[in-house]
Amino acid sequence: MAKANLFYAQSGGVTAVINASACGVIQTARTHGDKIGKVYAGLNGIIGALREELIDTSKETDSTIAALRHTPAGAFGSCRYKLKSLEDNRAEYQRLMEVFKAHNIRYFLYNGGGDSQDTANKVSMMSLKEGFPITCIGIPKTVDNDLPVTDNCPGFGSVAKYVAVSIREAGLDVASMCESSTQVFVMEVMGRHAGWIAGAAGLAAEQEGDAPHIIVFPEIAFDQNAFLKKVQECVKRFGYCAIVVSEGAHYANGQFLADAGGKDAFGHTQLGGVAPFLANMIKQQLGYKYHWAVADYLQRAARHIASATDVEQAYAMGKAAVEFALAGKNAVMPTIVRKPAKTYRWTVGEVALSDVANIEKTMPRDFISEDGFSITAKARAYFQPLISGEDYPPYKNGLPQYARLKRALVTKKLPAWQE
Amino acid sequence: MAKANLFYAQSGGVTAVINASACGVIQTARTHGDKIGKVYAGLNGIIGALREELIDTSKETDSTIAALRHTPAGAFGSCRYKLKSLEDNRAEYQRLMEVFKAHNIRYFLYNGGGDSQDTANKVSMMSLKEGFPITCIGIPKTVDNDLPVTDNCPGFGSVAKYVAVSIREAGLDVASMCESSTQVFVMEVMGRHAGWIAGAAGLAAEQEGDAPHIIVFPEIAFDQNAFLKKVQECVKRFGYCAIVVSEGAHYANGQFLADAGGKDAFGHTQLGGVAPFLANMIKQQLGYKYHWAVADYLQRAARHIASATDVEQAYAMGKAAVEFALAGKNAVMPTIVRKPAKTYRWTVGEVALSDVANIEKTMPRDFISEDGFSITAKARAYFQPLISGEDYPPYKNGLPQYARLKRALVTKKLPAWQE
Repeated sequence: MAKANLFYAQSGGVTAVINASACGVIQTARTHGDKIGKVYAGLNGIIGALREELIDTSKETDSTIAALRHTPAGAFGSCRYKLKSLEDNRAEYQRLMEVFKAHNIRYFLYNGGGDSQDTANKVSMMSLKEGFPITCIGIPKTVDNDLPVTDNCPGFGSVAKYVAVSIREAGLDVASMCESSTQVFVMEVMGRHAGWIAGAAGLAAEQEGDAPHIIVFPEIAFDQNAFLKKVQECVKRFGYCAIVVSEGAHYANGQFLADAGGKDAFGHTQLGGVAPFLANMIKQQLGYKYHWAVADYLQRAARHIASATDVEQAYAMGKAAVEFALAGKNAVMPTIVRKPAKTYRWTVGEVALSDVANIEKTMPRDFISEDGFSITAKARAYFQPLISGEDYPPYKNGLPQYARLKRALVTKKLPAWQE
Repeated sequence: MAKANLFYAQSGGVTAVINASACGVIQTARTHGDKIGKVYAGLNGIIGALREELIDTSKETDSTIAALRHTPAGAFGSCRYKLKSLEDNRAEYQRLMEVFKAHNIRYFLYNGGGDSQDTANKVSMMSLKEGFPITCIGIPKTVDNDLPVTDNCPGFGSVAKYVAVSIREAGLDVASMCESSTQVFVMEVMGRHAGWIAGAAGLAAEQEGDAPHIIVFPEIAFDQNAFLKKVQECVKRFGYCAIVVSEGAHYANGQFLADAGGKDAFGHTQLGGVAPFLANMIKQQLGYKYHWAVADYLQRAARHIASATDVEQAYAMGKAAVEFALAGKNAVMPTIVRKPAKTYRWTVGEVALSDVANIEKTMPRDFISEDGFSITAKARAYFQPLISGEDYPPYKNGLPQYARLKRALVTKKLPAWQE
């Protein structure tokens, strides 16, 4: 019988370092050619498995695979597609089994967040029942940093570094101009339910008066009066106020700030995000001149300013996933374990997929200052090592050179999937 | 008589490299201690001269001054304050003369755009009439790249690099997800009257299908039908469409796109910029799922991804300004001259301030493709060298370390300025 093949898929929103995990998977599998046949990657994630669109990574050169380590986004394509429960759509799971059987796939490595770990866990259980056991290993990934058990998630450290660097730089810009021009700057960052990214921006403030002066967290109900009072204090004291706001900022009743403006002149839902909403509120109430920025995908794709720690951890998670599979483990995910030490050290741990599936970890209250607008020393100690180190991609003609894959598909063996 | 002192001021919107010009000025002046006394910098630009708020740069250490080379924004403060004409407000010019006389300032180096060069020119003329001749030298600076005569402006190369890197990275992100999620991404960049920044983003597209697929220039009247047709073609052909739009994009009648939406539910002027406006138009007309980003100050403050060419040129302009002053030149500005050669080479040129004042240089039509949505090979050849090379700042604990100045003020000698 041919050696068993490995199927790898990327899931959900991509990050600056998810391809570093892919690099860890493929390079490690290549060193175990005695046990693992081919590494197939799903074209556009799990959809690729359903459609039997499998990228044969053996067609990619060693140097292309190595370049994945410094390439942002999802090189094989990702997707937002959650498999339904086994009861609701057994056919999807059956189809996965058929594709896996047809291509002798015995290892399934799923690189994603909580939903994806749930899916991997279900595939594992079903495969046992079906008598075609698949070794299912999760690989953590999410810029939101909201997976439980693991100390942090690959992808987070780099977006954290990006937002901290960006607010430091933009803060200096506003400080330069505030005597005669812009006094308030609002930067919107990702994090619909958890304020990890917004909190990490707080690292930029190292001395009294440094930006950011205010952070608006989704963990703290927005209090307009307290917020405006703080803005005014900052402008009076420092001449300007630099604000970081999480896209998930909301009122006590749960309503998102960004939804509060209602409709525009055409009856469309308000176009702007929470940054222009807050900037406008400040203008209306306090009269300060403002600017705002919405980094959106720029923040999670910013491989040019990735955290070296994050890149290393992302790679290590991919490598560990293959090693776990070869060690006979199943339905587990490698984790990042912070060692109790004065200087930051970490090691690879392990958790059952059932213990991470569909659990969301928000910022602990003691990471946020009493007034709710900044981070504590405890948060700073947690965040700081995660943005440490620079890992610059190679440049040519002034631009970063990212991997370009052939993405050659394996010949299909099954009838088309009816979507 | 004491050696003559030099007054340096930063003007208008700041950049990632204006402090590199300051570094060039101060370091060069320090090597000519036999001819130049102290270098004073205006606190918040020319306002500092009017208020007699002069920063004594001799109180800053050599290493702090050296750090200016890698520090973004305006370390001494800048301002948006245009002196009126001599006829309209002679008092302002008189006050400048008094302050310059009181502090034995015989050199005035003004670091800014077209308006600032106009001011420097007027100060020069007036000082001659007053019998207290001031040597006035301009130092070019503007992210907009719209000064005439000089091949390019310090500050532009770095914002150009930032936008090209950003759209390349975000483009890969959208490409990863477009099968099941976002298909259109719109990034708004600076440039209210000239499309240089938007155009430079086009460098990211090196191969068929690369982002950006569409650039919306302020030089080309916006044609909604042609635009939407092009968006649709891109999505059909590549699966997604990445768009760069200049904040100055407008209709044939001159109306800015960003102004077209009118009011929100509260009667406020629409909060969003042109990026959310275009994204929403696409959603309404074509139904595609979108994301958008507005980089705002992040782009012009992004010293972490500055162009090495830009840093060198900014420094060289500051250095040349001091050398010009010592060589007895007056009412001139150093320029960047591109040498006719296959590989990029440049040298320092010179132009009379009267020839650059208040003239705005927009993108030549032959830099823009016939359909108006991308750049030509000629534009590419112009832009490419300007983003070349990386000049990373030093990092500590994962964050760039930027200069922190004492900004010690010189003791005032005059009555307060009545503003």
